[in-house]
Amino acid sequence: MEAQRVAVIGAGAVGSYYGARLAQAGHDVHFLMRRDYDAVRAGGLHCTSPQGDFVLDAPSIARTAAEIGPADWVVCALKSTSIGEARALAGPCVGPRTRILLLMNGLGLEERFAEWFGRERIFGGMAFTCVNRGEPGCVHHLAYGAVTVGHLLDDAAEVARALALWAPARVEFSGVESLRRARWEKLCWNIPFNGLCVAAGGVMTDVVVGDPALRAIARATMEEVVVAGNADLEARGEALRLDGPAIVETMFALTDNMGPYRPSTMIDYVEGRQMEVPAIFGAPLARAQELGVATPHLATLTALLQQYARNRPGAAT
Amino acid sequence: MEAQRVAVIGAGAVGSYYGARLAQAGHDVHFLMRRDYDAVRAGGLHCTSPQGDFVLDAPSIARTAAEIGPADWVVCALKSTSIGEARALAGPCVGPRTRILLLMNGLGLEERFAEWFGRERIFGGMAFTCVNRGEPGCVHHLAYGAVTVGHLLDDAAEVARALALWAPARVEFSGVESLRRARWEKLCWNIPFNGLCVAAGGVMTDVVVGDPALRAIARATMEEVVVAGNADLEARGEALRLDGPAIVETMFALTDNMGPYRPSTMIDYVEGRQMEVPAIFGAPLARAQELGVATPHLATLTALLQQYARNRPGAAT
Repeated sequence: MEAQRVAVIGAGAVGSYYGARLAQAGHDVHFLMRRDYDAVRAGGLHCTSPQGDFVLDAPSIARTAAEIGPADWVVCALKSTSIGEARALAGPCVGPRTRILLLMNGLGLEERFAEWFGRERIFGGMAFTCVNRGEPGCVHHLAYGAVTVGHLLDDAAEVARALALWAPARVEFSGVESLRRARWEKLCWNIPFNGLCVAAGGVMTDVVVGDPALRAIARATMEEVVVAGNADLEARGEALRLDGPAIVETMFALTDNMGPYRPSTMIDYVEGRQMEVPAIFGAPLARAQELGVATPHLATLTALLQQYARNRPGAAT
Repeated sequence: MEAQRVAVIGAGAVGSYYGARLAQAGHDVHFLMRRDYDAVRAGGLHCTSPQGDFVLDAPSIARTAAEIGPADWVVCALKSTSIGEARALAGPCVGPRTRILLLMNGLGLEERFAEWFGRERIFGGMAFTCVNRGEPGCVHHLAYGAVTVGHLLDDAAEVARALALWAPARVEFSGVESLRRARWEKLCWNIPFNGLCVAAGGVMTDVVVGDPALRAIARATMEEVVVAGNADLEARGEALRLDGPAIVETMFALTDNMGPYRPSTMIDYVEGRQMEVPAIFGAPLARAQELGVATPHLATLTALLQQYARNRPGAAT
């Protein structure tokens, strides 16, 4: 595949890191930047990584999507709390043949993009990675980093095109047969760990897995998400299911190995920023309730996080 | 009944208020005081109350229980987190014929006193009241105030003796047939409201009842406590049960009417003091788990509160 024109919308930790990996691989990457624009203009985009630190000396950056214009791929890594601005932010980069990959957390976001831009061009990426922003112009890749990608219509040929884009990049990238299942699988981690790291008072993942009581709650929460996800997949007529025991075992093994990691929602919480409560918690809970699945742990975490969110400036709950 | 010699051990909000009511009624009340000793010595004990403010100008106060010596009644209103000191604190006031009334929250406290002093003299009081400490020497009775009392052996003649003690006092006092059931009934309020007011970030009761999601969690939590309590009563061979729907209706009606009240555990939380987690949450949860009763909401609240407690000085979890 020849170099593709890529617009990265939302250059937070995830967008900056994965965009930098695409640029490093030779793609023509353009970053929409807000907070870090001046720092990157002056000193480049710095990534620390266990795979080796690297720098993009002079990446193409823009303050508006119109400056970037239509791209082959839009990689959208906005926080889901900015979903209301996503159409306006991404729109100028979407031409007739543009494909859109969401590197975002939560349920139902691809459907929103599909309403605006058409289903056939929408992909969802599940990044299982520990990556945090550092000082402006710097992003810290701490651990993991594999991404799975699915297509909103589960079109295998389209998934193959996404894999081709990422093939030259130093990212472990693989395709999934069912985007919906992969979204729920990602939520199996995000709901218990993002949720409990916040609700336990702003603690890191090692506290949750290290305390027997919190660990049991995390596990029970994860099992609820599996049940809710499988009810959703069944209701949608999908053939595939979540393998609960395997997911629980894998997620806890990964988290045990993660050390003291701060999930994004916990960082948002302790830093007083908007948390991704509607997409990560509210939407899955609403779907579970619609399907009549009992989710006491998910409901409790959601109610608590909504309450915390209510006390932040500009919070949309 | 002639005036009784009463030792009040633990003159926090509850002990000060109810002790003052006994003194006001003509009993010979002696308060064991720590924080407020100097203030009460200098200026008396002041109570504000919707029933009318009143002052004990020169109540009998002591810094040690030995100064008080044996009493007819020991009213113990220590925080359950001080249970480790309770024997030493109350012991000097316990003679051969002394009766002991615990005005404390939580499950299993009477049994501890029974180990030390004998079952036949132990009473439990459930104070449904909104009462907070004010400046030293001052206690604010805000609302409610009724107390139910039971005897550890559910001895009706003994309950009648407790009622006789309180008959002249301006306190709505009534006896219960089953102390254990009454303890669980009190927990039906304390677990959801003390728990959620803390876990929701240190909010008042009106926030919990006013937010539909938190209200639903409070209700589901209360229903779990009812199920756990009834399983416990059944396992103990007690004839009486908790009437779940009536309890839920009553507790929510009382709380809706309470306005912005700060439960004691929430005050402890926001003021950085020890919270009564083991007695109010840990013991009921352990009993539910022993009986195989599913309590996801109680377990989640307990795990969260234990985690918050772990970060306080001197916390015993």
